[in-house]
Amino acid sequence: MRLSRYFLPVSKETPADAQIVSHQLMLRAGLIRQTAAGIYAWLPLGLKVLRNIERIVREEQDKAGAIELLMPTIQSADLWRQSERYDAYGPEMLRFKDRKGSEMLYGPTNEEMITQIFLSAVKSYRDLPRTLYHVQWKFRDEVRPRFGIMRGREFLMKDAYSFDLDEEGLKASYEAMFVAYLRTFARLGLQAVPVRAPTGPIGGTLSHEFHILADTGESALFYDAAIDEVSRDELLSADASSIARLTGLYAMEEEEHAKVTDCPVPPERLRTRRGIEVGHIFAFGTKYSASMGLSVQASDGSSVHPHMGSYGIGVSRLIGAILEASHDEKGIVWPESVAPFRLGLVNMRADDGSVTSAADEIYGRLQDAGVETLYDDRDERGGAKFATMDLIGLPWQLIVGPRGLASGVVELKRRATGEREEVSVESALARLTA
Amino acid sequence: MRLSRYFLPVSKETPADAQIVSHQLMLRAGLIRQTAAGIYAWLPLGLKVLRNIERIVREEQDKAGAIELLMPTIQSADLWRQSERYDAYGPEMLRFKDRKGSEMLYGPTNEEMITQIFLSAVKSYRDLPRTLYHVQWKFRDEVRPRFGIMRGREFLMKDAYSFDLDEEGLKASYEAMFVAYLRTFARLGLQAVPVRAPTGPIGGTLSHEFHILADTGESALFYDAAIDEVSRDELLSADASSIARLTGLYAMEEEEHAKVTDCPVPPERLRTRRGIEVGHIFAFGTKYSASMGLSVQASDGSSVHPHMGSYGIGVSRLIGAILEASHDEKGIVWPESVAPFRLGLVNMRADDGSVTSAADEIYGRLQDAGVETLYDDRDERGGAKFATMDLIGLPWQLIVGPRGLASGVVELKRRATGEREEVSVESALARLTA
Repeated sequence: MRLSRYFLPVSKETPADAQIVSHQLMLRAGLIRQTAAGIYAWLPLGLKVLRNIERIVREEQDKAGAIELLMPTIQSADLWRQSERYDAYGPEMLRFKDRKGSEMLYGPTNEEMITQIFLSAVKSYRDLPRTLYHVQWKFRDEVRPRFGIMRGREFLMKDAYSFDLDEEGLKASYEAMFVAYLRTFARLGLQAVPVRAPTGPIGGTLSHEFHILADTGESALFYDAAIDEVSRDELLSADASSIARLTGLYAMEEEEHAKVTDCPVPPERLRTRRGIEVGHIFAFGTKYSASMGLSVQASDGSSVHPHMGSYGIGVSRLIGAILEASHDEKGIVWPESVAPFRLGLVNMRADDGSVTSAADEIYGRLQDAGVETLYDDRDERGGAKFATMDLIGLPWQLIVGPRGLASGVVELKRRATGEREEVSVESALARLTA
Repeated sequence: MRLSRYFLPVSKETPADAQIVSHQLMLRAGLIRQTAAGIYAWLPLGLKVLRNIERIVREEQDKAGAIELLMPTIQSADLWRQSERYDAYGPEMLRFKDRKGSEMLYGPTNEEMITQIFLSAVKSYRDLPRTLYHVQWKFRDEVRPRFGIMRGREFLMKDAYSFDLDEEGLKASYEAMFVAYLRTFARLGLQAVPVRAPTGPIGGTLSHEFHILADTGESALFYDAAIDEVSRDELLSADASSIARLTGLYAMEEEEHAKVTDCPVPPERLRTRRGIEVGHIFAFGTKYSASMGLSVQASDGSSVHPHMGSYGIGVSRLIGAILEASHDEKGIVWPESVAPFRLGLVNMRADDGSVTSAADEIYGRLQDAGVETLYDDRDERGGAKFATMDLIGLPWQLIVGPRGLASGVVELKRRATGEREEVSVESALARLTA
């Protein structure tokens, strides 16, 4: 993409109303723009990151055997009356009437709807187990929206729902999602801590929150150092016994940890860090299937309420968490897996025909090789171009200037380390396409 | 995907409340499920089709130079007061108050929002022209939702907005979108007629509707036979003069045609067919930029209101149009480009170990070759499996049974023609992976 034809409104100034660094960077780097309190438009660069995160979330859901569908944003109040959550849910639920006076709401979550869809279609034990998921916009009418998309009102969430015949089946579905979550966060370049959560008003038997470690996190966590040592290989090859170990590792939020009188983790292995919650999973059993009167026929002919779980990831919120965990004083440092482009190509002298034709040629070759490139072909000062590239945080920068070209080299810079190297065009291309 | 692990609730019965064939087929083939009046959940098979359509729409928008962003579903009423459309818009607009009493609405379209986003970021002629688009859920509170997703309330739309310095620039942006639309519909396997539309309440100078030809269409069209003769090659190589020809070809809705006293098309070249509107494009000039007081600096230092156009495609509606145009008495006949899977693999005897292991092996090889396959591995009667496959309309069926295997063959069936052929496994795979 040529920057001269793109839409990337970056800003040098730190917006006064943005309190945390992720919010500041998202505004400054032209990722989002506020359109109402707690509601944001995703500008082209931000949307690309959002789509990359979605793709990784989807791939891991699919690998775990979950099946994607898509439920609408608007729901009928009657559906929520069946589960008795309509009155129980607070003012965070956006409620309204349509033109005919029917009570409707903008879905904050979908337990009721998926239960109705699934169990109106499925009648037999032979069609279980199933886990269904969707990635859809949700609305929670926060009383004080803040921190940009971290605590916004309209947000993108992946929510999955599992249906099993019995508690044992539910445990297997829960564990499959548990591991899928750890894999998802690892692929996003994030260190996640699965925190044992009180099951609370949603009910049920088992629940974990997933927190991303970041100094600016809103929760204080106490956890077993073994969590930091879980390797990617272990996640990829996780079997039943390693999953049992992983779900059992000690991790608590401060408030819960304070209640523990006999912490199983020796003091030298107990870590304290701050975290940002980006996922939450629940095994809640028959709460919805029973309250909504829905059942399937078991193999012995009896009628059973399926055991269910629900599994959420805050897809848009993850961008905030990534930024809190991955930035420096110059701007964003995207993990490779979610970067909006892999490379920023900088033409240092767009007013110089020979530099421009060299940069254009490199751009063409990068495109042919499938390297996602943002090409700064504008006629601007080099300093401003560098500042923009550092701010938007693409993993690599390739700088083409008259002096280098005279001696047959370009400059390749790694954003994360600031490391710069003068290399031939051929070797730069070889490195980037490897 | 193994059907035994999928979620595909098909039905033999024609739903009583579905009046038109596309609605009936979408319900019967398990593509959608109604969750409230005019509001639908997209089941896994339907979602795959929706995503395929989205992908083609996006690719053609990108090729035309449009840049994707994503605006939120919820908008502030104040934004619509600036353009004076808040009061003008009818009861189709879903309006409500948030918990603080701010007036909000579920966006039926985004002219105001994109104008504000773009022109608060762009100040100079050097950043024009630009065309921005998004694919987002919209809500129109239809008084009588009907025909399934064809006239639903929550629907998916691609809307693009162009910004140019002058009328001539706007004309070029309009023409680029005009051709992109024809290419999009051609790739979807549809025959589209661009109908000259009255500009109506949205104002402006030029407007076309795009209709898909189908006997059940709601509009009667009169058009120049030359439109039927536009070839894909002509669309792909369209230059300025051929675009001028295409935008000028005669096509009118009945009501408008009746007003024409001197039709330029000779009677023998005048076609009459019914159509379903799936796209609408407008060149409306400075209506929003002027009413919202937004301008950019021109090269001579003066201040100008950009000339704008807007360009919509009913993405979810397109599925209805495709089904109206492409079905037979047995069910759906998907065009290859949007089919949810390319192939249905049928195991005729899931209770026979040797048939199942042969079918499993073929399935594995199809997956390795990247052929999107729905594998009916269930222990059901062959007749029911055939009926399901014909109903869901995948382009190809591959049938593996004991008799064929004994003589080393499988049956390959083309859904569109019903043509069946006994071929070796190798030659079937070669055909499908070609």
